[in-house]
Amino acid sequence: MKLYNKAILPTGFKASGIASGIKKSGKLDLALFLSEFSAKASCLFTKNKIPAAPIILNQRYLKNNHLFRAIIANSGNANAFTGLHGLKDAELCSKILAKNLGLKKESVLVASTGIIGRKLPVPKIKSGVPELIKKLSILGIAQAKKAIMTTDTFVKEVSLKFNIANKVITVCGIAKGAGMIAPDMATLLSFIFTDANISQGALDKALKASVEESFNCITVDGCMSTNDSVMLLANGGARNNLIDSGKNLKLFTKGLEIVCLALAKKVVKDAEGASKFIQIKVSKAKNFKEAKLAALSIANSTLFKTAVYGENPNFGRIVAALGSSGIETQEEKLKIKVSSLKKKDISVEVIINKGKASATVYTSDLTPEYIKINAEYN
Amino acid sequence: MKLYNKAILPTGFKASGIASGIKKSGKLDLALFLSEFSAKASCLFTKNKIPAAPIILNQRYLKNNHLFRAIIANSGNANAFTGLHGLKDAELCSKILAKNLGLKKESVLVASTGIIGRKLPVPKIKSGVPELIKKLSILGIAQAKKAIMTTDTFVKEVSLKFNIANKVITVCGIAKGAGMIAPDMATLLSFIFTDANISQGALDKALKASVEESFNCITVDGCMSTNDSVMLLANGGARNNLIDSGKNLKLFTKGLEIVCLALAKKVVKDAEGASKFIQIKVSKAKNFKEAKLAALSIANSTLFKTAVYGENPNFGRIVAALGSSGIETQEEKLKIKVSSLKKKDISVEVIINKGKASATVYTSDLTPEYIKINAEYN
Repeated sequence: MKLYNKAILPTGFKASGIASGIKKSGKLDLALFLSEFSAKASCLFTKNKIPAAPIILNQRYLKNNHLFRAIIANSGNANAFTGLHGLKDAELCSKILAKNLGLKKESVLVASTGIIGRKLPVPKIKSGVPELIKKLSILGIAQAKKAIMTTDTFVKEVSLKFNIANKVITVCGIAKGAGMIAPDMATLLSFIFTDANISQGALDKALKASVEESFNCITVDGCMSTNDSVMLLANGGARNNLIDSGKNLKLFTKGLEIVCLALAKKVVKDAEGASKFIQIKVSKAKNFKEAKLAALSIANSTLFKTAVYGENPNFGRIVAALGSSGIETQEEKLKIKVSSLKKKDISVEVIINKGKASATVYTSDLTPEYIKINAEYN
Repeated sequence: MKLYNKAILPTGFKASGIASGIKKSGKLDLALFLSEFSAKASCLFTKNKIPAAPIILNQRYLKNNHLFRAIIANSGNANAFTGLHGLKDAELCSKILAKNLGLKKESVLVASTGIIGRKLPVPKIKSGVPELIKKLSILGIAQAKKAIMTTDTFVKEVSLKFNIANKVITVCGIAKGAGMIAPDMATLLSFIFTDANISQGALDKALKASVEESFNCITVDGCMSTNDSVMLLANGGARNNLIDSGKNLKLFTKGLEIVCLALAKKVVKDAEGASKFIQIKVSKAKNFKEAKLAALSIANSTLFKTAVYGENPNFGRIVAALGSSGIETQEEKLKIKVSSLKKKDISVEVIINKGKASATVYTSDLTPEYIKINAEYN
């Protein structure tokens, strides 16, 4: 297995990114990802009960269709809380792109991120589509990955190449953060592409397992977004024997996990205003669920996060947060280990001595800069 | 009914407060509340699974005993996460006070607030007790109410006088905040005294109902403390006919609710670093529980709170927080009203048009000052 700190598109994928004018700053804001041949898709979306329009549309497309060709994604506008009109706008985006490429609209997935509650400027997207298509290339990922950014200060990208049954498979992922990050995927968009030949069931299983221990184990501010999406396309371009179960599925899942975890950690490293990267492990728990719940309770404690920012070893706040998770623990059995708070990377381990399971979550400190960014963002 | 913005002890109660040396600053840190005759007690404690030692002790005393005479409370040290040793220390405090007053230790309740995880300096408390007893008086509440403060910038106190069956009854309450405030009572200590003659069952019912819509409807930072306690003593000094049910219990509950809500709002007004007081009402919900869950989800959203601090009318964050509460809502039916963000008192109403119930919660904005206070506190 070889990991690259860079997006390298797998066989059969192209991408592009342009500035369509959605962002007033004139920065890149529209991205296209295309598979030259039909791809299977597996997607996980926010559990927010008021999901954004693109999510509702994608869910419909995914229900009735099993082969996809493209994803069109914009930043600068979330197309969320935009009602039925927003849903039509999302559909229109898929239609416009499909028409320009001679595809069915149902084979085009959509994604949006940015301000909630404002009408999507579809005319700007429509005007941009011909240029977007013209610029499609393997190297176009360089623009596409920038076009999905909002308050991100750096691009989140990673690629993994590994062998399955004598064929080299590539899994390439990009993501955007950087605030409203909480389990169940926060304002997070991640697009992952692979040339693996894999069955739908295996693809779904692999993504679910990978996200559970990566994107669903990070939190910046405990705020669940309306737009979170992890979208995975697998086009079979590597021409490997179909991955369906057993050793090969295990291997593919392992690779996908590596990509997802690397991206998730990058999202936390770029958390709005953060000055520290914090890893919290709860170990010797009864089961993974309990360990994760406890770890997230600590990770979401604003008092713990401000203490880390202040390099103030206030262990009491870890205990208080642990207790507030609702997990039964025996005070006498608890052990807490905290690395030096003076460093940029902090690790906390809470050993609860109840069983054998553990979970690790990732978060950042809470800083005056976070407040500054979010008080002014609009 | 007459409400006073001041603590006026009811018939039969005395109090005192001294500086025993627990706080290095030399500020008042030890308080005593005494009823001259036996009082019934009703207490509600944190749901934190790692409660502080005084809470464990009080729960034992309350289980086996039904008449109380005193509460001894200290600030500067929470006696939390101090294990079995901490429990012995809490018991020792009740013993020392009881011995000096010729009482049974089981008639003395205890409370602590301050830093978690440090041994309670019992010798300092022991040395202070004789002075504490000497200073007991009706006006001693003036010192007692200051002795329970930690990061509070002002005293939270209120009294209500009202008639029940031709007798004037007084309910007097004091409280301390000011961070780690979340439903289920946060780092909040509140002591409430009444001269009402009331049955134990009625007292418990009245307190539960009052706290549910007051202390359990406030949040500053979503952090649940290890020490939260609302402790109510009723000594019957008003010599009214026993309140047990019906109209009189309704009236008493109403009075207690007024006192609890006034104190809870004061706690929020003094929230660490806060620049705004925010009232969030969710209305036309299916039931109170759902309305409260939705309102608290908004109140605990750091993104919403920073937007209010920035006077930035980012409605999308209200929608995202509402959606993340897990409550089913129809986007088309939602109505959101927000008062001018330029003022100090903000009100938000979210009408979800599902039913007839509503709930109101209170919170503050999240400011750089909050982070400063909590990064440095130790």
